[in-house]
Amino acid sequence: MQKFLGARSYRLYELAELVGGIVDGDGQTLIRGVAGIREAEPGEITFIANPKYEEFLGVTRASAVITGRALTAPKPVIRIDNPYYAYLQVLNLFAADVAVRYPRGVHESAVVDPSANLGQNVAVGPLCHVGKNARVGDNTTLVGGVFVGEAVEIGSDCLVYPHVTIREGTVVGNRVILQPGVVLGADGFGYAKNGATHHKVPQIGRVVIEDEVELGANSCVDRATTGETRVKRGTKIDNLIQIAHNVTVGENCVIAAQAGISGSTEVGNHVVIGGQAGVGGHIVIGDRAMVGAQAGVTKDVRPATVVSGYPAREHDVAKRLFAHTAMLPGLFKRVKELERRLRELEEGGRHGPSATNDR
Amino acid sequence: MQKFLGARSYRLYELAELVGGIVDGDGQTLIRGVAGIREAEPGEITFIANPKYEEFLGVTRASAVITGRALTAPKPVIRIDNPYYAYLQVLNLFAADVAVRYPRGVHESAVVDPSANLGQNVAVGPLCHVGKNARVGDNTTLVGGVFVGEAVEIGSDCLVYPHVTIREGTVVGNRVILQPGVVLGADGFGYAKNGATHHKVPQIGRVVIEDEVELGANSCVDRATTGETRVKRGTKIDNLIQIAHNVTVGENCVIAAQAGISGSTEVGNHVVIGGQAGVGGHIVIGDRAMVGAQAGVTKDVRPATVVSGYPAREHDVAKRLFAHTAMLPGLFKRVKELERRLRELEEGGRHGPSATNDR
Amino acid sequence: MQKFLGARSYRLYELAELVGGIVDGDGQTLIRGVAGIREAEPGEITFIANPKYEEFLGVTRASAVITGRALTAPKPVIRIDNPYYAYLQVLNLFAADVAVRYPRGVHESAVVDPSANLGQNVAVGPLCHVGKNARVGDNTTLVGGVFVGEAVEIGSDCLVYPHVTIREGTVVGNRVILQPGVVLGADGFGYAKNGATHHKVPQIGRVVIEDEVELGANSCVDRATTGETRVKRGTKIDNLIQIAHNVTVGENCVIAAQAGISGSTEVGNHVVIGGQAGVGGHIVIGDRAMVGAQAGVTKDVRPATVVSGYPAREHDVAKRLFAHTAMLPGLFKRVKELERRLRELEEGGRHGPSATNDR
Repeated sequence: MQKFLGARSYRLYELAELVGGIVDGDGQTLIRGVAGIREAEPGEITFIANPKYEEFLGVTRASAVITGRALTAPKPVIRIDNPYYAYLQVLNLFAADVAVRYPRGVHESAVVDPSANLGQNVAVGPLCHVGKNARVGDNTTLVGGVFVGEAVEIGSDCLVYPHVTIREGTVVGNRVILQPGVVLGADGFGYAKNGATHHKVPQIGRVVIEDEVELGANSCVDRATTGETRVKRGTKIDNLIQIAHNVTVGENCVIAAQAGISGSTEVGNHVVIGGQAGVGGHIVIGDRAMVGAQAGVTKDVRPATVVSGYPAREHDVAKRLFAHTAMLPGLFKRVKELERRLRELEEGGRHGPSATNDR
Repeated sequence: MQKFLGARSYRLYELAELVGGIVDGDGQTLIRGVAGIREAEPGEITFIANPKYEEFLGVTRASAVITGRALTAPKPVIRIDNPYYAYLQVLNLFAADVAVRYPRGVHESAVVDPSANLGQNVAVGPLCHVGKNARVGDNTTLVGGVFVGEAVEIGSDCLVYPHVTIREGTVVGNRVILQPGVVLGADGFGYAKNGATHHKVPQIGRVVIEDEVELGANSCVDRATTGETRVKRGTKIDNLIQIAHNVTVGENCVIAAQAGISGSTEVGNHVVIGGQAGVGGHIVIGDRAMVGAQAGVTKDVRPATVVSGYPAREHDVAKRLFAHTAMLPGLFKRVKELERRLRELEEGGRHGPSATNDR
Repeated sequence: MQKFLGARSYRLYELAELVGGIVDGDGQTLIRGVAGIREAEPGEITFIANPKYEEFLGVTRASAVITGRALTAPKPVIRIDNPYYAYLQVLNLFAADVAVRYPRGVHESAVVDPSANLGQNVAVGPLCHVGKNARVGDNTTLVGGVFVGEAVEIGSDCLVYPHVTIREGTVVGNRVILQPGVVLGADGFGYAKNGATHHKVPQIGRVVIEDEVELGANSCVDRATTGETRVKRGTKIDNLIQIAHNVTVGENCVIAAQAGISGSTEVGNHVVIGGQAGVGGHIVIGDRAMVGAQAGVTKDVRPATVVSGYPAREHDVAKRLFAHTAMLPGLFKRVKELERRLRELEEGGRHGPSATNDR
């Protein structure tokens, strides 16, 4: 699996046809696998999407390269506008050969409530639990050790990895992927203070995960106090991420690892949030906004704006502040020098012709 | 569960009596459910605790509103000093109707060591494990897929969600809630360096979680090297939080998601720690202190102090620094202008009457 | 377990021989346990490695102290160069008495594929799953509720705690410890955009965890897109940490809780990364570098360099910037004062002898 070799080989021209690219060089080159530019060996194809990696073009042992520009490469190349997407398509071709095939049906060690409704071709792996009145759609796979609570609805063609917990009433769409340890529908963090005591606010809302969403390992989406916490279609969420109660995350967003979004915040569509960023509660982030890694968002972000830093500001402003902060030692010296020179002028004046102006 | 309707209805005056509030308007109004101010539909009651939401008072479709102030609302209102706590009480009324009822007794797929001691009315759900000499108190529920290690003690009326791990020797009080994926009693992070090698320091202490504590999904409390790591009565901890070995967290604290507390730190009572904040090791945080979101605490915090930023400072100071930092570009301009004007003065002086003062 | 008392006692001189230290005082002192300096009771031994704790030397109830310096202690002492390492050795002596003994063999509730290969003296605890063609080395313990995927290889003498997920094809070395909830081999976070849609890049690489590595509770190491994500020999990783796809972490590193390392980054040997620090993608961190807590690393770090802050800078520079930032309010006042005095000088000049220089 490390040094991956597919079950069959392809000619370079076949791969070019698949991705819709143009071959420069020998289209008959035989490709048996895929690898990163530094690790690739003869027989493998690699790609360059980030110019940073062009320096490896001369030394890579790959037999062919997918690239977005007309580079003068010492080896056969597939040229195409979106080389990363083309690489993905080639990877998919080979990945099919190595994908784990989870046996369909219910493993004898799984515990499925008789009232649960399983679709066609479902796989319920070892030591899974499917609760009362839960529904699992066609072709969905619960790999093993998955806990599905009461009245949960899971769509079709989903892939749910071990130790995922889907609490009662959660709704999961189609073609959703939940990496190991994901928690959907844990109670939101809500307490009402009465005297010194924090009383738990019951969390009777639910979580809705729409189609084509992916959630990374050990990420959490809390159920709503009332109503819904919702992650919309096509959004991709990395590992160890916190989505609090009553949050809405729009369509086709990308949220990097260890970011957190506080309660009742609304994230628009096509938003990108960097790793370890935090977004406060009751905030609106507009469509196509971007939040930098480790940023702390304390107020609304307008659509298509890039923000960074803490407290988060428009990125150009934040960058200028970082630059000015870096120049602070010099500024202190300049002010000290100004004080010295001004004192000199004043003292000069005091003893000179303009001394009469001295208070 | 999403559009929640309770099994029975209440008159508004009945709810007002329950919470100890005053009805403005028609006390006979029929209430069948509870919702947020923007999502509420006719027949539901909502609340306003945060003035930010008063703007929705005119447009909400709710049939009644719980509010803390004499607002001129176009609909029936329950007025009360602590509207959020009143809302909680009403929510509790309806929540009882929708709460999952976990079957009592030991599920046939659970593995309970014969030496374990289970109280009255305990529920040990599917695929749980209860280890040697462990004790589980009356009415406690292990929902499913819970791992309880050797000699663990769990009190009564606890609710432990799936994929929680409670390692050997951990003590859990009464009325404790552990959301999915919580880990209690993992080894503290301690190594002694000898040459280039890090040698593991055995972690033979334990974790104690006192009564009425709640821990959020995938949060971790490490066991002590020797002695205890302790979270005291009534403290509420959100998701994905790290509590390191030998930490003490006081009573009635609130710690928001993704915060982390390093080894041997002592957090007082009634302390509030914001999301993604970090507290260094061997630090003392006084009672009623507050730590801002994303703050980095590097030294002791006095009682009743609010700190923020990195390194964390008293909030007023930190705010002033943030404000001054934001004005840095202007300051650079002012200094440049000062330099220009001073040069001009000096040059003027050089050629003018005070030129004799020129060195 | 809290107030730990070993099954047998030792004379102080025996412990001194064990660790290679020198006794000051009564070597016949009987030691029955180990504790922190503030919690220790008579009959227990404690240690001082951090001078901060020397103040407790006069009041500790411990019967003896391990210390690195010739302190004038009012009680027997073992003097030794590396007191923390000596303490570890004494702790190990007593820890052996309290360690949980996991029964060897396969628990009847575990699910082990017939094609799996289990070594000598392996323990597969309750509700574990070992997949097709997986291999588990001699003396390794899967405590309970562990999921081992297809074709996983685990070495000998490993300890794998509950709710750990080891996905297909992962390789784990010898003497590795995986705390509860660790996830190895979840898909890396890779998508190629085509139009508005994020298409999943198949992640067909693997994870390799070398010998003597320890990973803390709920930490995640993602599998590579192609090739490997690798954590090298002797590296210790705390709780809730993210290691993204295609990262390499070198030998004998220490990474504190909630830190995150983005894709394709290379961390050298003997690197220390503080809690909640974040490292961007495609970055190289040199051997023996140190990254401060909460730092945000945005570019390469040279070997043996200490960096901190966001964006991370050499620690001396970052400290100076923090110090200068703290003095900003004073600087604003000084500039305002300069402006006042300069205006005065200018106005003085305007009405005085040098008025001819006025523009």
